[in-house]
Amino acid sequence: MPEYLVRIDVILRPLVNDPQGLAVRDGLHALGFADVATVRVGKHIEVRVAAADAAAAEQAVRAMCEQLLANPVIEQFSLAVTEAVPAS
Amino acid sequence: MPEYLVRIDVILRPLVNDPQGLAVRDGLHALGFADVATVRVGKHIEVRVAAADAAAAEQAVRAMCEQLLANPVIEQFSLAVTEAVPAS
Repeated sequence: MPEYLVRIDVILRPLVNDPQGLAVRDGLHALGFADVATVRVGKHIEVRVAAADAAAAEQAVRAMCEQLLANPVIEQFSLAVTEAVPAS
Repeated sequence: MPEYLVRIDVILRPLVNDPQGLAVRDGLHALGFADVATVRVGKHIEVRVAAADAAAAEQAVRAMCEQLLANPVIEQFSLAVTEAVPAS
């Protein structure tokens, strides 16, 4: 089976408080970036997975997100099968 | 000035050891996702910044990455000015 590189972004839902993002925003302001309005910090995960085709890879990674990589109560995720890579 | 939403992905450089990614990979294997080859874990950051235009927003956020958001010794980043949003 070919391998696919799937890029996942996990971020807190809009109404969930994000203290890490607030701290980063304050740090940017202290560095002189006064035009920064808001900052949200989440996770970026890259998974290489063997699958029959891109649709199967996306389906598998979506299940991984729902079971382990994201907390659906407070987080939302988006994913993109960005490229097929040769099996290593 | 209009506000822009800039999406940033920060990830460890390819040759840097990623113990968090290895732990996530082992967790996925334990859940039955045997086809996972590798996992890399990084940060996803969304910044809303006021700027004259999209190019100015990208330039400002690139400076933020180099000064605070990424460690250029071990991390690399990519960014995308994904949309213009009305100033809040």
